[in-house]
Amino acid sequence: MSREQRIRIDGMLRRPEPDGPRTVEEIRAGFRELMAGMIVPHGRIRTASTTLGGRPALRVEPKSGPAEGVESGSGAGTILYFHGGGWVFGSPWTALSLTGNLVARTGLGAYSVDYRLAPEHPFPAAIEDSLSAYRDLLDSGEDPSAVVLAGDSAGGGLAVTLCLAARDAGLPMPAAVLAFSPGLDATRTGESMRTKEGVDPIFTRAALEHTGAMYLAGADPRQPLLSPAVHADLTGFPPMLIQVGANEMLLDDSTRLAARARAAGVDVILDVTADVPHVFQAFAGVLDEADEALDRAALFLRQRIRAGGAARASAA
Amino acid sequence: MSREQRIRIDGMLRRPEPDGPRTVEEIRAGFRELMAGMIVPHGRIRTASTTLGGRPALRVEPKSGPAEGVESGSGAGTILYFHGGGWVFGSPWTALSLTGNLVARTGLGAYSVDYRLAPEHPFPAAIEDSLSAYRDLLDSGEDPSAVVLAGDSAGGGLAVTLCLAARDAGLPMPAAVLAFSPGLDATRTGESMRTKEGVDPIFTRAALEHTGAMYLAGADPRQPLLSPAVHADLTGFPPMLIQVGANEMLLDDSTRLAARARAAGVDVILDVTADVPHVFQAFAGVLDEADEALDRAALFLRQRIRAGGAARASAA
Repeated sequence: MSREQRIRIDGMLRRPEPDGPRTVEEIRAGFRELMAGMIVPHGRIRTASTTLGGRPALRVEPKSGPAEGVESGSGAGTILYFHGGGWVFGSPWTALSLTGNLVARTGLGAYSVDYRLAPEHPFPAAIEDSLSAYRDLLDSGEDPSAVVLAGDSAGGGLAVTLCLAARDAGLPMPAAVLAFSPGLDATRTGESMRTKEGVDPIFTRAALEHTGAMYLAGADPRQPLLSPAVHADLTGFPPMLIQVGANEMLLDDSTRLAARARAAGVDVILDVTADVPHVFQAFAGVLDEADEALDRAALFLRQRIRAGGAARASAA
Repeated sequence: MSREQRIRIDGMLRRPEPDGPRTVEEIRAGFRELMAGMIVPHGRIRTASTTLGGRPALRVEPKSGPAEGVESGSGAGTILYFHGGGWVFGSPWTALSLTGNLVARTGLGAYSVDYRLAPEHPFPAAIEDSLSAYRDLLDSGEDPSAVVLAGDSAGGGLAVTLCLAARDAGLPMPAAVLAFSPGLDATRTGESMRTKEGVDPIFTRAALEHTGAMYLAGADPRQPLLSPAVHADLTGFPPMLIQVGANEMLLDDSTRLAARARAAGVDVILDVTADVPHVFQAFAGVLDEADEALDRAALFLRQRIRAGGAARASAA
């Protein structure tokens, strides 16, 4: 039963906080351990280490060609994925349940970028790496209308800020942005920062500010690349799907970005699931809402890639 | 090309207003003529006249059993559909492109209710008829977890207010609500009432108030059943998908209902498409965005019916 599933997962995540802030290495190890418990669809994907834009990356491909429902010819397309972890922890491997489930469900191949992390490499290192990866993909011959950006948490934020950086660099927009519980506001001024504290089983303001400060390294958070939900002009953005849990302190990062997107004339789907935590899609195989959200995300990506394919065909 | 499609449809709808308000019969005939131009998937559905809750209704069924992607056993389910037309015009036949496309895409059967219209039958006649139809469906043995409510424009509003009325009557909630450009605010206080006038190719404030007054017939609009986006408590509502065009004066009916739903702990997807008019899904077969939106709607309905089926199976 899904209601029971939601309650069980909430309880699993709601662990006692350690005394005082943890070290970076403790945070990274704890996250690796948590995410190692997620179900990766190993039978349906294959992975290979590679590089993209000068950074290590994980190539993730469907094991047996395009998935059901993907027309032949539209299979040409790439998911450029950015893992979560507050710009401080995580890797393509900790996000493999998410990337793998998108690949398995869409039949598209993905690159998951091992971008540089704070505190060793604070803002804007991660954004520079995301832009280098996108540029490398285009330079290799991929059509931007066949590239979709996706990411969870901080990586969802990177998918959004990469569009800003690409626009500023004069690069064409990708076909779509898919963001799971994106981190989009370093000013931390969303109402949910207050209203969901205690409700959110994962985050506290103190924990968010602890890692957030490592990424900021003194930079002013009041700028589009650090707080796109508050400061970015989204004009010209591709269609976006934002999925978020209602029990998140980061909920209003999503609701405010969606409102800005609507105001800028951008197609935007804001998909809110009640009673689920941050990046609940990682619980695919355990939580029905996770699988359902991934199925909706896969349909969205297939639609955007197919539309890009039609545009490419008529331009040829 | 989709951008060209959007522009062509906007121009088609943007016709000169007649001098002065039209009569009810002129409005009804004009709407019949407009909607007769929409593409109904006749090859994939069959229709039959019937009654539901004491009102005429159109039964719409898939021609060849459950659609692809619908597991056998989960095909048991019903779409209860409410057509648009400002509570003054329209019928199950004017909405058949919408109802038929949902039936063809989901494999579910539908009842489209010919509820009473204003000015002959003002508020709350339509809501009473919607409740009678739902009650009749449950009395006939349909499980509420296998019923999804859907509607466009005023009918999207009825899908929402039916949940309020059912809750007040002590009836169980349906499995989901799907609303295309719902009319949810008789107070007409949304910002888009001002910001989208002129942008909206269909509506003017004067036209909305002309038919709106027929439905109100002097009732105070500041009540949940007339302005759910402003006054309704949505606690306990089933998951909702709201699709709306960004060029609509009614846009903020949807954005405010979605915000209320989020605040009430309801799963809600707010799916906004830029540069498209009111109930753009009626242009299926002509406008790519229409078909894509209907595909997303069909996935949502199948997910909710399937979840209801799982709940019924474990309760049995």
